[in-house]
Amino acid sequence: MTVHLVGAGPGDPELLTLKAARLLGSADVIVHDRLVSAEILGMAAPWAELVDVGKDPNGRRTTQERINEILIERGRCHDTVVRLKGGDPFVFGRGGEEAIALQGAGVAVEVVPGITSSIAGPAMAGVPVTHRGTSSAFTVVTAHEDPAKPDGLNWNALADLGATLVVLMGARRAEKIRGRLLEAGMAGSTPVAIVTEATTPRQHVRYLELDELGVEPVANPSVIVIGAVAGSPVLTSSVLRSTVLQPIDAAATSLPHQTTDFEGTRA
Amino acid sequence: MTVHLVGAGPGDPELLTLKAARLLGSADVIVHDRLVSAEILGMAAPWAELVDVGKDPNGRRTTQERINEILIERGRCHDTVVRLKGGDPFVFGRGGEEAIALQGAGVAVEVVPGITSSIAGPAMAGVPVTHRGTSSAFTVVTAHEDPAKPDGLNWNALADLGATLVVLMGARRAEKIRGRLLEAGMAGSTPVAIVTEATTPRQHVRYLELDELGVEPVANPSVIVIGAVAGSPVLTSSVLRSTVLQPIDAAATSLPHQTTDFEGTRA
Repeated sequence: MTVHLVGAGPGDPELLTLKAARLLGSADVIVHDRLVSAEILGMAAPWAELVDVGKDPNGRRTTQERINEILIERGRCHDTVVRLKGGDPFVFGRGGEEAIALQGAGVAVEVVPGITSSIAGPAMAGVPVTHRGTSSAFTVVTAHEDPAKPDGLNWNALADLGATLVVLMGARRAEKIRGRLLEAGMAGSTPVAIVTEATTPRQHVRYLELDELGVEPVANPSVIVIGAVAGSPVLTSSVLRSTVLQPIDAAATSLPHQTTDFEGTRA
Repeated sequence: MTVHLVGAGPGDPELLTLKAARLLGSADVIVHDRLVSAEILGMAAPWAELVDVGKDPNGRRTTQERINEILIERGRCHDTVVRLKGGDPFVFGRGGEEAIALQGAGVAVEVVPGITSSIAGPAMAGVPVTHRGTSSAFTVVTAHEDPAKPDGLNWNALADLGATLVVLMGARRAEKIRGRLLEAGMAGSTPVAIVTEATTPRQHVRYLELDELGVEPVANPSVIVIGAVAGSPVLTSSVLRSTVLQPIDAAATSLPHQTTDFEGTRA
């Protein structure tokens, strides 16, 4: 009777935590986002029900309200429910909202942190978010919303901070981010690294300067890291992804999973 | 012939990644800090050499230069060397410096991200570093150095940013951090949570306001999270640590490890 809000990490199944793998292998129900790979879902027990809340049958995004309802419903009926989210559940993962909804409905909640792409993404490009003598702090923001819209974040302060800036979900707004940061006084020559599909076999890295950000389209999903650290990667060799992981309980996974879309229809 | 810079996570052995556990179980040499627990080191293969670079035989901290020398020396002689660091290697872990030194000496390097206490620590107090409507960004700083000293970080901008502020290694400087942030205009009523020894059985959480930070001593190690999110934890139930983890290869770990202090003497 517990819903575990579990971080699935940035992509590489080997970057799941031991705890996430254990819970995945024992969960009755796994409620997951679109960004969680088939390889990671393959670590589920064969009897587990997989609920995809990435989008509804018409291709629309499932609303947060509906996701909360699904979690409460499943949490009331099953011993172990895993709510699996890319990255970390509390870094733009809306895990806080789900925790509040579940507890409000009397369902126990546990959070299991995951590797966030905001740090692992830059690392895959050889870029440490902090580096002695270069950056003693880092800020993580999302640009899912329009950066021109007031959102409580002070972009001028962001430019003044002197810290590494990591932007998540900024692919579509790359040009606007550049405009906002230049307007706030950040130098056009500030180094930038864009890491697309970090830690997956499709990983791709580009190094550029702030002036060039958004001139060419940025693929989705990407982590954009802005600041001096992006200008001198500490790893020159390309970091390769580890070998493909075997399912945790390989002996027991030959049966197909029950797959349920978010309305409860088997798919 | 590779040195893997591996994050050991915040404390709970189950918050190691699968990759970290695999490398720990197969490494010839593990070079580790003081903060890595005996429980985690117990996951090493029985033949592994454990090198503690936390402090030298006289109780002094091992210099970074000496650590680099040890890594280069071991990296040249062994197939798999793990440099194990609390948290994430690139979040105030000096992983960047070690990567540069190793590659300069012709030794291959790989980075394996770990769960950072800067996010997992607040999560254990029920505090999401981001939360819709409350905080759309977070900044992580260290207060290992005196915040009154110029260090490239603009504390005024930090106070103006409107983001969650996470301070690592700030236990001894808690009072100075308060002073610096109040001086920069942050409200004394800003909520604060202090999470000590996050994710370990000794975990302890305190909720207070910025005005009170440092009035009582802050134990080491603590994560200090400052901002609106600290004022309304989303998990009211206490988050318990998972059960104690068994060694990955329990059948093979009855022999004592070779333990070597950083000068090469068996201990």
